[in-house]
Amino acid sequence: MRIVVDAYGGDHAPTEVVRGALMAVRELENVELIFTGKEEELLALLKEETYPEERVSIRNATEVITNDDSPVQATRTKKDSSLMVALSILKNKEADAMVSAGNTGAYFAGAFRVLGRIKGVKRPALATFIPTLTGGSILLDVGANTDCKPEHLLQFAEMGAVYAEDVLKIKNPRVGIVNIGAEEAKGDELSKAAHQLLKTSKVNFVGNIEARQVPAGDADVIVCDGFVGNVIIKLMEGMASSMFGMIKNVFMKNILTKLCAAVLKPGLGEVKKKADYSEYGGAPILGIDAAVIKAHGSSKAKAFYNAVKSAANFAESGAMEKLRQRFHQEEETHEC
Amino acid sequence: MRIVVDAYGGDHAPTEVVRGALMAVRELENVELIFTGKEEELLALLKEETYPEERVSIRNATEVITNDDSPVQATRTKKDSSLMVALSILKNKEADAMVSAGNTGAYFAGAFRVLGRIKGVKRPALATFIPTLTGGSILLDVGANTDCKPEHLLQFAEMGAVYAEDVLKIKNPRVGIVNIGAEEAKGDELSKAAHQLLKTSKVNFVGNIEARQVPAGDADVIVCDGFVGNVIIKLMEGMASSMFGMIKNVFMKNILTKLCAAVLKPGLGEVKKKADYSEYGGAPILGIDAAVIKAHGSSKAKAFYNAVKSAANFAESGAMEKLRQRFHQEEETHEC
Repeated sequence: MRIVVDAYGGDHAPTEVVRGALMAVRELENVELIFTGKEEELLALLKEETYPEERVSIRNATEVITNDDSPVQATRTKKDSSLMVALSILKNKEADAMVSAGNTGAYFAGAFRVLGRIKGVKRPALATFIPTLTGGSILLDVGANTDCKPEHLLQFAEMGAVYAEDVLKIKNPRVGIVNIGAEEAKGDELSKAAHQLLKTSKVNFVGNIEARQVPAGDADVIVCDGFVGNVIIKLMEGMASSMFGMIKNVFMKNILTKLCAAVLKPGLGEVKKKADYSEYGGAPILGIDAAVIKAHGSSKAKAFYNAVKSAANFAESGAMEKLRQRFHQEEETHEC
Repeated sequence: MRIVVDAYGGDHAPTEVVRGALMAVRELENVELIFTGKEEELLALLKEETYPEERVSIRNATEVITNDDSPVQATRTKKDSSLMVALSILKNKEADAMVSAGNTGAYFAGAFRVLGRIKGVKRPALATFIPTLTGGSILLDVGANTDCKPEHLLQFAEMGAVYAEDVLKIKNPRVGIVNIGAEEAKGDELSKAAHQLLKTSKVNFVGNIEARQVPAGDADVIVCDGFVGNVIIKLMEGMASSMFGMIKNVFMKNILTKLCAAVLKPGLGEVKKKADYSEYGGAPILGIDAAVIKAHGSSKAKAFYNAVKSAANFAESGAMEKLRQRFHQEEETHEC
């Protein structure tokens, strides 16, 4: 498996990207890494590390797309950026999958332009891994597509189910739709119509999922319009951060609470990590005609390690082939 | 101030309703209470309490609308319910404001039918108090109106700003709109168009509020479509509950962690309360032509105490008059 890694994407690039990806390549013997980015800087970073040199290479890219760049424009003007060079490597089949923690909009727009959609997919969707009490779910779309139509949500569900089953190895994944009540007749026009499509689809549809059920893990694949999905992931971030902020204040109250805090710290650290979806190593942009994994912008080494593993799993799983077959077929059926 | 209280609304009715409302009437000497519900049961409950008898009365209502009832149907068939009797008391000007923790849909539909809209208001909105790091904000709409138009969101903002200023005493309240990015051009069609309307409105518009900023308290009044608002409040509930569940597991690990948990319990209890918006005693249904306060279904005595105070503040504040004037005027301007 050849994984191309945008070494200059994310808040902690390139150091944490390189560290995390090397952790993965040391562990996974069938993985080859290609880093894209400023060659000299990357060489200097690699010098400090021990790694299987025959399976790691660098492709020079002199530019960097930042979060301040306008996504669509950046994909046109910064052709020699680490992101665009990585995409072209994937396009040329010099790699089997890709990881980037860079500008989400530019990644999405660039992937769309360079790699294209799977034939039959109306709109590729950005998925995110959501930590839950029972492990985790995938939520899609989380911001790439606002103002969706019911058939878009149906496709998100179909794509998410393939990914959950083949890549995450969840057997017969439960698919739910975000709604504001459990009953079929609840919700806005979009969710009501999508519910009807999902009911008669081939996915294992478990019905409406209210937002309070999301952290409980009541479905493995949760679909919604990108506006709603983006609100969900950002609110989860905001809630976790504000709650831990308040808890910290309780700990700092006096010497006794500080002592107790020290005892509980490791366990609470685990909870914090669990609540923080940026740890989970990325999620796919589904519907793009190649295996592309987006890692969270704030990813550190551990998350990049996980992201490279996700990318390798994605490429190995055969999920891309299954998606291509399914949507080609659907399109042909529609055309008949 | 005469406040009519639906004594049979909410998960802990009637005991907690009566206890909480009596707490308020004991404290607020200018408040008179009218409880609606099963007279004999209520008399028995009142017997156990000390309270200013001359300021508390009961109006018999033999039926109860439950959460299992279909909202619109229940308002038609259960005319002698505690909710509908309370609404008719308000309609007949025998009370100045109302509190119920009952079936939200039925409360909204009943208020709409019995009391009507403020002239000029297109859609009344259900608001909720959101606990934040800096105190709290009001969020509207939280589920009464899905598939909103931009002008609905503008009116939500105008109504929310009057309530925040006159009832909550927040000077020049900051009004924001839920969106998925800070920039004007971000978001779905609805939020982009509403942003433009808000920019040129008379409210103190602070722009787009990303969901992660909601718990931080970056705006005093936050407007959104009811689908999105409902997702926000339910996710806040779900996140708080799942995080405290995980924290509890850390505490139960061994004898040392249990001891430490005991030390930290009071402080963490405060955090839990703060994160739980059901404590905050209700929020208005804005745009209805009377002061109606909805308390959370899970309200206990403390929340009802707060809800009665909110209702009294609402009635006393002159906010209803201001809303009537503003929207009548707007409608007249539009008609010219």
